[in-house]
Amino acid sequence: PRSFFNVRFSFQETLLYLPSTAVNTTLQLKKLQEQMLLLNISAYIIPGTDAHLSEYIAPRDARMAFMTGFTGSAGTAVVTQTKAALWTDSRYWVQAERQMDCNWELEKDGGSIAEWLISEVPSGDEIGFDPFLFSLSEWKIINGDYRINLESSNRSLKSVPVNLVDQVWKDREPISSHNLTRLPDRVIQRPWQKKVMQIRDQIRDNPYEPTALLLSALDETAWLFNLRGNDIPYNPFFYSYTLLTMDEIWLFLHTDRMTDELRVYLNASCNGSLCVQLKSYDTVRDYLKKYVAQPRVKVWIGTEYTNYALYEIITPEEKLMTSSYSPVLTTKAVKDDTEQRILRDAHVRDAVAVIQLLMWLEKAVPEGKETELTAADYVNKCRSKQKDSRGPSFETISASGPNAALAHYSPSEESSRRLTVDEMYLVDSGGQYLDGTTDITRTVHWGTPTAMQKEAFTRVLMGNIEISRTIFPSGTRGVNMEMLGRRALWEVGLNYGHGTGHGVGNYFGVHECMPSFYFPHIFQKPGYYKENDFGIRIEDVAVIVPVHTKYGHNYLTFDTVSLVPYDRKLIDTSLLSSEQLHWLNKYYETIRRLVGPELDKQGLHEEKDWMLKHTESFMMSGSSVSVCSSSLTFIALAVALLHNII
Amino acid sequence: PRSFFNVRFSFQETLLYLPSTAVNTTLQLKKLQEQMLLLNISAYIIPGTDAHLSEYIAPRDARMAFMTGFTGSAGTAVVTQTKAALWTDSRYWVQAERQMDCNWELEKDGGSIAEWLISEVPSGDEIGFDPFLFSLSEWKIINGDYRINLESSNRSLKSVPVNLVDQVWKDREPISSHNLTRLPDRVIQRPWQKKVMQIRDQIRDNPYEPTALLLSALDETAWLFNLRGNDIPYNPFFYSYTLLTMDEIWLFLHTDRMTDELRVYLNASCNGSLCVQLKSYDTVRDYLKKYVAQPRVKVWIGTEYTNYALYEIITPEEKLMTSSYSPVLTTKAVKDDTEQRILRDAHVRDAVAVIQLLMWLEKAVPEGKETELTAADYVNKCRSKQKDSRGPSFETISASGPNAALAHYSPSEESSRRLTVDEMYLVDSGGQYLDGTTDITRTVHWGTPTAMQKEAFTRVLMGNIEISRTIFPSGTRGVNMEMLGRRALWEVGLNYGHGTGHGVGNYFGVHECMPSFYFPHIFQKPGYYKENDFGIRIEDVAVIVPVHTKYGHNYLTFDTVSLVPYDRKLIDTSLLSSEQLHWLNKYYETIRRLVGPELDKQGLHEEKDWMLKHTESFMMSGSSVSVCSSSLTFIALAVALLHNII
Repeated sequence: PRSFFNVRFSFQETLLYLPSTAVNTTLQLKKLQEQMLLLNISAYIIPGTDAHLSEYIAPRDARMAFMTGFTGSAGTAVVTQTKAALWTDSRYWVQAERQMDCNWELEKDGGSIAEWLISEVPSGDEIGFDPFLFSLSEWKIINGDYRINLESSNRSLKSVPVNLVDQVWKDREPISSHNLTRLPDRVIQRPWQKKVMQIRDQIRDNPYEPTALLLSALDETAWLFNLRGNDIPYNPFFYSYTLLTMDEIWLFLHTDRMTDELRVYLNASCNGSLCVQLKSYDTVRDYLKKYVAQPRVKVWIGTEYTNYALYEIITPEEKLMTSSYSPVLTTKAVKDDTEQRILRDAHVRDAVAVIQLLMWLEKAVPEGKETELTAADYVNKCRSKQKDSRGPSFETISASGPNAALAHYSPSEESSRRLTVDEMYLVDSGGQYLDGTTDITRTVHWGTPTAMQKEAFTRVLMGNIEISRTIFPSGTRGVNMEMLGRRALWEVGLNYGHGTGHGVGNYFGVHECMPSFYFPHIFQKPGYYKENDFGIRIEDVAVIVPVHTKYGHNYLTFDTVSLVPYDRKLIDTSLLSSEQLHWLNKYYETIRRLVGPELDKQGLHEEKDWMLKHTESFMMSGSSVSVCSSSLTFIALAVALLHNII
Repeated sequence: PRSFFNVRFSFQETLLYLPSTAVNTTLQLKKLQEQMLLLNISAYIIPGTDAHLSEYIAPRDARMAFMTGFTGSAGTAVVTQTKAALWTDSRYWVQAERQMDCNWELEKDGGSIAEWLISEVPSGDEIGFDPFLFSLSEWKIINGDYRINLESSNRSLKSVPVNLVDQVWKDREPISSHNLTRLPDRVIQRPWQKKVMQIRDQIRDNPYEPTALLLSALDETAWLFNLRGNDIPYNPFFYSYTLLTMDEIWLFLHTDRMTDELRVYLNASCNGSLCVQLKSYDTVRDYLKKYVAQPRVKVWIGTEYTNYALYEIITPEEKLMTSSYSPVLTTKAVKDDTEQRILRDAHVRDAVAVIQLLMWLEKAVPEGKETELTAADYVNKCRSKQKDSRGPSFETISASGPNAALAHYSPSEESSRRLTVDEMYLVDSGGQYLDGTTDITRTVHWGTPTAMQKEAFTRVLMGNIEISRTIFPSGTRGVNMEMLGRRALWEVGLNYGHGTGHGVGNYFGVHECMPSFYFPHIFQKPGYYKENDFGIRIEDVAVIVPVHTKYGHNYLTFDTVSLVPYDRKLIDTSLLSSEQLHWLNKYYETIRRLVGPELDKQGLHEEKDWMLKHTESFMMSGSSVSVCSSSLTFIALAVALLHNII
């Protein structure tokens, strides 16, 4: 999907198309203000995230949306006895103003929350916040920078570990009661015991001598134990924390969701160094407090994903050790040989589903009965029939004509357009599989595209290819790739307003933390959007692989693992360089080699013919062929972490 | 010159080649410790910068070098009664260890200064610092982040406005006694009165309603009044501050350096809103204090270039308004039509000097008598003969063979190599002119380069051309250009370890603050360095100009104003794309068109022939020519400030 490298949750996507009626928030506001009075708090801060600082959150964690009516993914609300205010970034202002009633004011003047609090809260008063919903860095932002500091201005922040919104939210969804599942051996990189030992090595080797590691992000615990759940839509996560020492493992979760089989799998009945002691989710602060009270202990946390509620009880400071990311996050981000092999399989099956959709649409659209919604249903159904499918990895974006030019669009009953041969169509979808997570976007036209549509599409494709074929030193940062995705568009004065890449997990979140560019697993997705007319996006998952170069070592390139052809009708080959044409032909050969046998195996003969037709080699002029780089020899090795070059 | 986007001062460059004898610092350390005892200070911090946070500093401000012996450009020293420690970045560690005696320890373990201070200074004690030598952000770093906070750990920082190093530095150089000079009307953008009115408009329009603007960076005051001085080597600056209100102008400087003519020029005898009141440099704190004591005033400062000594007296906080950069810095960075026209002239004359050097070397080197030093002298002499010359803009880097692979190299008597036809030669030099500042690097070979040298040079050139010919939206950040400078090198596993661009002033510093990429004036300088063998760098100044594109508005490209041909012998045209060849041929046409008449005018006929020979058009294969973009139509307009696109 489109990512602005910001948090969001998926059910917000349809709401741009709801009638512009605001939600009446008078009742919940009044009740919250009563709670605040009881605690003698003059203001209360309501962030939009969950206790694990997740990008996508469960409906039961959508406290900001419940209080304000505003369902955008980024925002913070603050309530006093007389005022209620929301901060969100400018791309959400129209939506926020439509969704919020007159109880709320939208803060658009650029002032910080700290400044607002100083003007609204009398000196000496307290401002309440739920420490579970703030990362350290967010907490610092609220608390103010060196000039505007709440505490120095005599307003203090009061940590209130029981959430006040939850107190007044009557019909809040309960926690999922589904059992957790373990991944089958055939799709795991290594057993959880090996991962635990590996992480313990990193704890032991750390020069600051931590004695324990606290894991807070949901994908950290899920990765460590090869476990999955369903607590967040489209994301196979479950609420959990882990406290790992050299001798013990405490796993905090809703223990009633652990089957006997899982208890055996985790050695849950013993206390040894490879026995997982299951503890109730709500007791994490108590256990951490007890652990920290011991002499000679030091807890390692990653500041980006640890909430303030856990941070604040690790005192005195000698007992705390911080890095931006936990060693689990950095270890997990590097995909080794086994993982690469596993995820490639998932992408081959996923390509079958997308090819089925595109072939079907080519036949069905001219008959005039299909819509954005029926197309989305079709691709979801195709995916669900593939082996190891676990549903879509996000809400399918199926967008025709002007709808494709809108950010965050997914079709609803009200908005869904009929598909026609006169409009372009964009489908951005993905699947969760036991062996991988996919995310692919293709843009097609079933009639005759305009010259401008064809040029824009070709230049978007050129950006995609330029990223795919580039060679770069290990440690190059993602921001450096932006230029390659955009340059062909910039040449004629076109551009796009979103980022060009993001990380992706393996049967995990479709957006994964990617602190730097060592990682053999990313997305690329240039696009172009013409308001009220059409939208173009091409999105592929690529694995980062080592490449042999003439003079240097530790150079990398991308190997695209999404395997669906681009619409030939929209490609103006005269714009492509010979290197780009060469890349495209090699990519099409790869599709034939890898997807062809899978289509045969599944007995999809018509789809096979369709694929062959759409992956025919493009002609190159004679003189150009020789220029093609022959140094793009992929070597199948795991990529080592090296220091940043630029 | 090479920049790592870090501070440095120029006389440090030769010191890598001094014999490895350390400086005896026992005496000055002992004296400093006595001063500290008198003030009851347990530790004293000595930064390497001056009161204006200048990139290049005067010898009299080299307090860190005086105390430690270490002459690197980046570093901070701390002294207690028993220890003396230095922090600098790793590229200076070898140099620091050679230059410092046993009194000093080099801190290489990654611990912060705050951590060290907490371990060395007893609880309750005070740590002294000169508030003039810290920007706000540096002060915050020393004071510690949220975990390691000096004040919360009961050690306090004590601002000592009289520098203790100066107290013990007997033979410290006095301040320059040269008179300041005003720029002639023909080389100024607009009169100082207009600039003052323009800046006052920005003060008036600011929503935070400041009443005054404080200017601390040396180029801010010099720019505002069209004045220049010579207080810092190679930089035409003078020690100064300005406090500008809507009604008054206070200029703080060494008033004895103002001639009667300058006093008339500045209307120094009146008190009106366009009269400049001259005040002694040392009274800036007193005047600022008096101003701030008034009711309803608010002082605007740029936090990047304002020292803590001025910041700390602007209290209470309602009287302070901050932005990262002052409106003078952001206004100055955008070069308008007039400035662009003026600076282009300076680069034409500068090209004459560099062409004179290259032609002379081509003849003289085979005779075997020339060295790095004689070549540097020659180009400096050529520049000095050009109209409006004001000396070199930095110490000339004249480097042959392995010397060119060293960072910070300038030749000394000990290090200077004889130039031969068997080694590559790199010359990085620039001039100050009344109408502009230049900085250009060329790498040449007078014999037969190896295949690898030729390939590396060609790929460095390709990087330079790719940046030059790229089209990008206004607001693109510099980091996005990195990829273009490096990509051709990366393809074969080569890279370089420094940045790709920096801002440059107009008769100002050769490195100019460039907060973002709107500005029509930058450097580009890809390179490649093979240790103990050779170094390649190509460096040109380019002006950012608007460009017409097929679909978009507000797109920009570079127009190279450095006008010296590259060494043909080192260019393998078979590696260049047709677009790159086309760019090169157009560039050479421009050199002929602009530098040809100037060479004629100066009667340099042999140089003219040399230039014509070296700017002959490269042949392109028939099929390629048609591909060349015809959209590179430069439009001569001032560039408007637009918001960041990516």
